[in-house]
Amino acid sequence: MRATLIEVAPRDGFQPIGPFIPTDDKVSFVEAAHAAGLRRIEIGSFVNPAAVPQLRDTAEVLRRTAHLEGLDAQVLVPNARGVALALEAGAQHLAYVVSASEAHNRSNVRRDVATSIRDYGEIVAGLPAGLRLRLNLATSFDCPFDGRMEEDLVLSRLDALLAHREDVEVGLCDTTGRADPDHVFSLAAKCLARFGARTRWVFHGHDTYGLGLANVAAAWRAGITGFDAAFGGLGGCPFAPGATGNVATEDVAWMFRRMGVETGVDLDALLRLATRAAALPGASPGGRVRAALADRCAAA
Amino acid sequence: MRATLIEVAPRDGFQPIGPFIPTDDKVSFVEAAHAAGLRRIEIGSFVNPAAVPQLRDTAEVLRRTAHLEGLDAQVLVPNARGVALALEAGAQHLAYVVSASEAHNRSNVRRDVATSIRDYGEIVAGLPAGLRLRLNLATSFDCPFDGRMEEDLVLSRLDALLAHREDVEVGLCDTTGRADPDHVFSLAAKCLARFGARTRWVFHGHDTYGLGLANVAAAWRAGITGFDAAFGGLGGCPFAPGATGNVATEDVAWMFRRMGVETGVDLDALLRLATRAAALPGASPGGRVRAALADRCAAA
Repeated sequence: MRATLIEVAPRDGFQPIGPFIPTDDKVSFVEAAHAAGLRRIEIGSFVNPAAVPQLRDTAEVLRRTAHLEGLDAQVLVPNARGVALALEAGAQHLAYVVSASEAHNRSNVRRDVATSIRDYGEIVAGLPAGLRLRLNLATSFDCPFDGRMEEDLVLSRLDALLAHREDVEVGLCDTTGRADPDHVFSLAAKCLARFGARTRWVFHGHDTYGLGLANVAAAWRAGITGFDAAFGGLGGCPFAPGATGNVATEDVAWMFRRMGVETGVDLDALLRLATRAAALPGASPGGRVRAALADRCAAA
Repeated sequence: MRATLIEVAPRDGFQPIGPFIPTDDKVSFVEAAHAAGLRRIEIGSFVNPAAVPQLRDTAEVLRRTAHLEGLDAQVLVPNARGVALALEAGAQHLAYVVSASEAHNRSNVRRDVATSIRDYGEIVAGLPAGLRLRLNLATSFDCPFDGRMEEDLVLSRLDALLAHREDVEVGLCDTTGRADPDHVFSLAAKCLARFGARTRWVFHGHDTYGLGLANVAAAWRAGITGFDAAFGGLGGCPFAPGATGNVATEDVAWMFRRMGVETGVDLDALLRLATRAAALPGASPGGRVRAALADRCAAA
């Protein structure tokens, strides 16, 4: 049994941090994650730098980590402009995001879901052959504006999106952290049963309400084997102290180790990395294993 | 669907807190838990007051909360002397503890497991009719000295214990917080299949490694409907900063609410109580929902 951890701290985790993290440090974090055994890393995004100034150096981070052996670096792209910039920078793996919820999509990318799905179709049609594609479905379970999402609606969004291209990796994203394990299991099982084997599935969870690992375990039980996570549990919003971040990579790695599931991660190296990340100025760290194994977190 | 939450903060949560919590405050916490809808509360223990000075006033707390309507107050008793004191104080519900692990039992009650099981048989034989009994099996999953516990050994301990009396409530205790959801599901399912319907089952989890809710969800899925939890996530050891406490009652209540499972708990009242408990001098609080719903935690 093997689970794949997809490290998203350099994008989802760094994004809400106010003080600019120097490019050298970003590169060093990606190198340390790679050295800890992580091979899938979301290293940044090509979004408007006025909107997300923290990630304005993604092209440079991408270039300076391209030599890492076996690294599969993905970058987030919100629109056609982002795709063009990502390709120009040499990106090999793009991640596009659409919200299942109409209200969240409008808030996030200022267009309706139908337009986002059509835009996605155009992007897919124009992509060079061989480019890897990740499709994140935000608010797959719950929306900050609309509350709980009906499964039928979510499945119909996926019908429309996967009609454009089947061989993508789809991230079922619990954007608010309010999904519960029964809900995660149910939707994950339906997705795996409904769509073909060419589509791969990832669960993206937040630990805001303490359900991060419970939901990862539920997705795993349903047959999902890929999991987004952020070292140090980064990804919280500094303007909303309670809105803590992504499920911590070290917590997920710990759980899978206890369950006898291989992740390829060196837990001690990951704990040292997570401890360093948690100390970043402006960060809102999370996770529990760092504290529980504090004696193993100190830098060597 | 209905889950029963058993509030253990007044015993397991208060026990490791150094500064003495005045008896008036203890009574007030039990009253507030009752007002929040909790009906099963472990209010203290009859142990050597030299060993656990914090709980030396259990008899008084028991007496002063006896009038609360529908309250089922249990007290922990480690031995025959504790049973005598508890009965003298008017206790109606006793909780006895044995460890599955030999090493932990010796460390905890300074005798081997066989002796503890024999002692238990003598206690059971001498109990007045109608007295409710809870049997906690510490280290049901993992032992701080011996590591992972073999299920066959744990089941054989239960064979011996339940031979003395079937109509008890058994607490499967994850003493170290190192149980994982697969392990919890497996042992819980085996217990429910092996023993008769007169025996009832409770899962007692700690959130030290962030697996508290994942393990509660696994036990629930296996058919267990009773869950120990402590408001504010109390129960950490102040001498080991990482060793955080019991799974937080407010987190468990939140999860079950999201899952559509009734607990009878007023979440807002519970959040106010948890916030007050987390501020106790010397406490090591835990849980996530308090922070996520911080705007609902303020005292009215």
